[in-house]
Amino acid sequence: MKKVGNQSYILNKPVNIAATASIVGPKEKEGPLHQFFDQCLEDEFWGESSWEKAESKLVKEAVSMAISKSGIASSNIDFCFAGDLLNQCIASSFGLRETNIPFIGLFGACSTFVESMIMASALIDGDFATNTICTASSHFCSAEKQFRFPLELGNQRPPSSQWTVTGSGAAILTKDGTGPFITSFTPGKIVDMGIKDANNMGAAMAGAAEDTLVRHLTDTGREPNYYDVILTGDLGYIGKDILIDLVSSKGYNIKDIYNDCGVLMFYKEKQDTHSGGSGCGCIATVFSGFVYQMLQEKKYKKVLMIATGALMNSTSTQQGESIPGIAHAISIEVL
Amino acid sequence: MKKVGNQSYILNKPVNIAATASIVGPKEKEGPLHQFFDQCLEDEFWGESSWEKAESKLVKEAVSMAISKSGIASSNIDFCFAGDLLNQCIASSFGLRETNIPFIGLFGACSTFVESMIMASALIDGDFATNTICTASSHFCSAEKQFRFPLELGNQRPPSSQWTVTGSGAAILTKDGTGPFITSFTPGKIVDMGIKDANNMGAAMAGAAEDTLVRHLTDTGREPNYYDVILTGDLGYIGKDILIDLVSSKGYNIKDIYNDCGVLMFYKEKQDTHSGGSGCGCIATVFSGFVYQMLQEKKYKKVLMIATGALMNSTSTQQGESIPGIAHAISIEVL
Repeated sequence: MKKVGNQSYILNKPVNIAATASIVGPKEKEGPLHQFFDQCLEDEFWGESSWEKAESKLVKEAVSMAISKSGIASSNIDFCFAGDLLNQCIASSFGLRETNIPFIGLFGACSTFVESMIMASALIDGDFATNTICTASSHFCSAEKQFRFPLELGNQRPPSSQWTVTGSGAAILTKDGTGPFITSFTPGKIVDMGIKDANNMGAAMAGAAEDTLVRHLTDTGREPNYYDVILTGDLGYIGKDILIDLVSSKGYNIKDIYNDCGVLMFYKEKQDTHSGGSGCGCIATVFSGFVYQMLQEKKYKKVLMIATGALMNSTSTQQGESIPGIAHAISIEVL
Repeated sequence: MKKVGNQSYILNKPVNIAATASIVGPKEKEGPLHQFFDQCLEDEFWGESSWEKAESKLVKEAVSMAISKSGIASSNIDFCFAGDLLNQCIASSFGLRETNIPFIGLFGACSTFVESMIMASALIDGDFATNTICTASSHFCSAEKQFRFPLELGNQRPPSSQWTVTGSGAAILTKDGTGPFITSFTPGKIVDMGIKDANNMGAAMAGAAEDTLVRHLTDTGREPNYYDVILTGDLGYIGKDILIDLVSSKGYNIKDIYNDCGVLMFYKEKQDTHSGGSGCGCIATVFSGFVYQMLQEKKYKKVLMIATGALMNSTSTQQGESIPGIAHAISIEVL
C-alpha cells in the first residue's frame, strides 16, 4: 500500500469484493430499493421470540448467504469483521458464534460496515488474509427499545429523527477476483460538533463526514467528480444538507453526485420516516444490495462510500454529553 | 508475515512496543501489583461527576501518558485502536475524542486489549502504519451499574463472581525500536460452552482460551514451555483451574508457567473479590504495568498473553441465552 497525505491509503493490489448479501425488514421492503435486496422479511420477528434474536438471525443468514454466493468454503475464510448497535454488539456475536472463523469484533456505531471493509482490505493487502467477511446489522425495534422508548408507548418522533433500518449486509472480500475492487480508503477521526440532541444524529455526524471527505479529496488530490457517486451512510435529509454546505465552504461542490443511503432507503413522503434511514444496517444493505449491483452492471464505476457513526449511548445523553461522530471512507472501483 | 497452521501469524518484522502506561483505581492500589502501575487513584470518581466520565478520563490520561513516554508526536500516530465494556464503548470514544488520530473502535469484551494489539501489529507489519496506540479500559462501578445491580443496593455477590478492574492500560506499538517485540499472534474464534450463569464468566470463557491456546501451540509447533509465562486476561480462579484441566486433556501441562491477570491483580483472602479480577482493564493494566516492566528487565523473555472476552449483555442473559466466549493470543518476546 501507499500512504497518501495524512490519513489515506491506496492499496498495492486492489481488494476484490467477491460477493455480497442483504436481508431487510418489512418497512425497507416497501421502500424504493426493495428489488435490490436478496430477501425482505414479512415481519420484524422472523419467527424468533425477541427482536434481538431476530437481529442475530439477520446477521447469521446474511453472512451465510454471502459465503454461499462467493463459493468459498468457510474454512478458507481467514477473518470475520463484524459489529452492530446493540449493547456489547450481541447481534454479531450471537449471529456468528457458529461460523468457526477467527472473529474481530468492531464498534464504530453506524460506521461499522465501512470500518470492517477497511480492516479487511488492510489485512488482505498486508498478506494476513486471503478471504474475509465483513458484516454489520441494525434492527428498528431492538434499537428503539435500547436507545429511546419502549415501542409499545407509541411515542411521537421529532422531525429531525431518523428511522433505524432493519437489515444486515455482508460482503466477502478476497485477494483475487474480477472486481468490483476496493482501491483506497481514509479512516476517520472522532469529530465532536457539540450537538446534544440525540434526535438529530444527522447534524451530529455531518462534521465527521466533512472531515473525512475533505481529507480524502486532499490526500488523494481528487476532485469530487473523480467519483460517479459519493454516498454517506446515514446522515438523512438534514445531515445531507449540512454536509453539502460544509464541504461547499471548503470549496467543493458535491451536490450533483452526492447522496445518502438513509435518504435512498425510504420514500420521503409516504413512509413517514422523517429525516430518513439510519443504523449500521443502512449502508450495509444499501451497499450490499443496490450499490454492488450498480457496480456489477457498470452503471457506477467509481464510488466513494462514507459510513458515519454517532459514538454515544443513552447514558451519555442523560449525562448531558454531546455526540461525537466518526466517518470512514472507502473507494470502490470497476477496473 | 507468515501464516502458520490454520490461524496463527508470525510477523515478518517483530513489532516494537515503545511505551506503555497504566492507571488503576483504589482497590487495585491495595493489590499486590500496585507498585507497577503509573498511577493509582484515591477514589472511583477522580473528580468527575459520574463513573462513566471517570472511565473516559482513565482512557484519556493513560493514552496521553503512553504517548508522552514514547516521545512520539501524536501527529505521527497513524491509528488508535480502542474499546471498553460500556454500552457503545463510550469510555473510548469520549476519552479519545480530542486525540485527532484516526480511530478504529473495537469490541471484543475483555479480549479487546489483545485484539487491539493484533490489529495494530498487522497494520504495522502490512506497512499501513508506523506508530499506533492500543488501549482498553473498565471501571468497577460503571460496569456493576450497567451489567448487574445499582451499587447502592449492596447486593451480595456469589463466590464465582469476579471483580471488574478499574483501570486503563495503553501501549504504543511502532515499526522500529529496541523491544520488547510482538512476534506472533493467534486471533480467536467464538466458542460457546453453553454456560448461562452471568456470575461465572471464568467458566464461560475458559473454552475459548483453551481453543486459542491449543491452536497457537499446534500452529506454531511450540510446547507451552517455549514461554516463560502464559497469562490469560480474566479467567479468575475458577476459569484458571478449568483451563488447566481442559488443556491437560489435550496433552499439554501448563500448570507451572501459567497464570491469570485476574488472579494476579488482587489478594485472594483479604480483598474479598471472590474469583479474582476481570474487565478489559484487567489484562490492559497488568500488561502495561507489571508484564511490560518484567520484559524490560528481562525477567520475562517470552510471554504469551491470551485475553478472554464474554460476548454477552444483560438482555441476552435475561432472554436465557448462553455466554459465547472469545480469546485472542499474542506473543511478546525480548530479542
